[in-house]
Amino acid sequence: MSIYWVQGEFWPKEEIRVSPDDRGYLFGDGVYEMFRVYGGKLYEPKLHFERLERSAAGIRIPMPYSADELHERLRELIRRNNLQEGTVYIQITRGTAPRNHLFPKDSAPVTMAYCNELKRPLAQMEAGIRAVTVNDIRWLHCDYKTLNLLPNVLAKQEAVDRGGDDAILHRGEVVTECSASNVMIVSQGRLITHPANHLILHGVTRAVTLRLAAAAGIPVEERTFTLDELRAAEEVFQTGTTIEVMPVVMIDGQRVGDGQPGPVTRRLQKHFEATLGD
Amino acid sequence: MSIYWVQGEFWPKEEIRVSPDDRGYLFGDGVYEMFRVYGGKLYEPKLHFERLERSAAGIRIPMPYSADELHERLRELIRRNNLQEGTVYIQITRGTAPRNHLFPKDSAPVTMAYCNELKRPLAQMEAGIRAVTVNDIRWLHCDYKTLNLLPNVLAKQEAVDRGGDDAILHRGEVVTECSASNVMIVSQGRLITHPANHLILHGVTRAVTLRLAAAAGIPVEERTFTLDELRAAEEVFQTGTTIEVMPVVMIDGQRVGDGQPGPVTRRLQKHFEATLGD
Repeated sequence: MSIYWVQGEFWPKEEIRVSPDDRGYLFGDGVYEMFRVYGGKLYEPKLHFERLERSAAGIRIPMPYSADELHERLRELIRRNNLQEGTVYIQITRGTAPRNHLFPKDSAPVTMAYCNELKRPLAQMEAGIRAVTVNDIRWLHCDYKTLNLLPNVLAKQEAVDRGGDDAILHRGEVVTECSASNVMIVSQGRLITHPANHLILHGVTRAVTLRLAAAAGIPVEERTFTLDELRAAEEVFQTGTTIEVMPVVMIDGQRVGDGQPGPVTRRLQKHFEATLGD
Repeated sequence: MSIYWVQGEFWPKEEIRVSPDDRGYLFGDGVYEMFRVYGGKLYEPKLHFERLERSAAGIRIPMPYSADELHERLRELIRRNNLQEGTVYIQITRGTAPRNHLFPKDSAPVTMAYCNELKRPLAQMEAGIRAVTVNDIRWLHCDYKTLNLLPNVLAKQEAVDRGGDDAILHRGEVVTECSASNVMIVSQGRLITHPANHLILHGVTRAVTLRLAAAAGIPVEERTFTLDELRAAEEVFQTGTTIEVMPVVMIDGQRVGDGQPGPVTRRLQKHFEATLGD
């Protein structure tokens, strides 16, 4: 797994050298996507490419390639790395120029992509994870998937330091999402998750899960919910590209429901799994 | 000006190669300082090194060097680049490791420093600049000087696109600071600036200016002030490492006072200049 795709060419990882003037390095001035690969193919590529285009437009980086061009190159990346099950990461920074906050005038975006083998986390999906609640101190455009990830990094680390597997973030009393995934609760049989506005990332797995829930006749509410609602929920789960539908069975040391993944979570896991053969 | 100091050694810029696994590149996971160099010497080095240590502690990066060690290396950097008047930039990232939000276990911080020639912006300091007001959408630890600078980049670019030189940021009605400097107003003869809490960077030039104001008998209030107070102010100026005490003479197309730098601003510029011979 060591062939990268950088600036239009394929390179062994050892030969990749990032410029010290890359704005990704100096400002975190770039956007990214993480794709899931099942059976050697990108999962839901259209939703990921659309989000990449939205993120880039949001921070005003001109896309250096069309979605079709990117898809073709990422297919080739997967082929060259002989990847069957794993992830493809791609990031696009604003380019390379002497450090200045202003957008550089004569600089082209820098694109880097690579892949990794990764198995589905089946044992965790069966048992569920422990979460801790952490203050959401991020900026006010969490809908852009950018390289400014320091608050996410700090939240994840704090969660693990406090004995959890991940953080559930809250802005004041309102639960937003997790350090790198969305969060949903089941309350009185209804599926509730934060609206897809500027305060959360619009997860691909979130969208897939809501679609599957609707198709299964599970009532869905996209609305804000509070920490109290989170703690009183019958079921809680995360949705994310690598974790799929991941039960949360403990929050801040308290059991969710009876401490086992609940029936709605299990149904959605099964429905999600059924999409993987597509 | 092309000798860098990276990972404890001096290199020509052309030979610097950043790893694609550097967490600065993937997460903006690092801190930095920009020092002013006058007469071949760092200006107020102690305040900058203390802030660097605070920033690193804030995001839990262990400092790879003591302030004294860094000072000695930066002196050598200045000497090797034969720099008289300019800036020294230093950044410290959390290290190099396969991408994972969690802090890497076996990775040392990556330090990079370089310098640039830069003259004092005397013409602008004489004439003043035009600012525009821009929504402050940053995270809630603006007191850490980190590489997550995307909102600052976007604010600066928006200001220039709207015909200004820089952005004055406001969170709701409260004025915080600028895209890369602090802001102060003079109202009824009193100097007012946002308190040094988590919502602004604790500027070195801000601290120096407040000290100079107090010594000159100018009443100082560190308190929040509103957009209305900003617009009604007799004088407005920025403080920053490269811009020193910079008058703002126009905000959103409206003159500040009579559209000329005011007497308090001029006094503080003069007092600031007097510190440069130290």
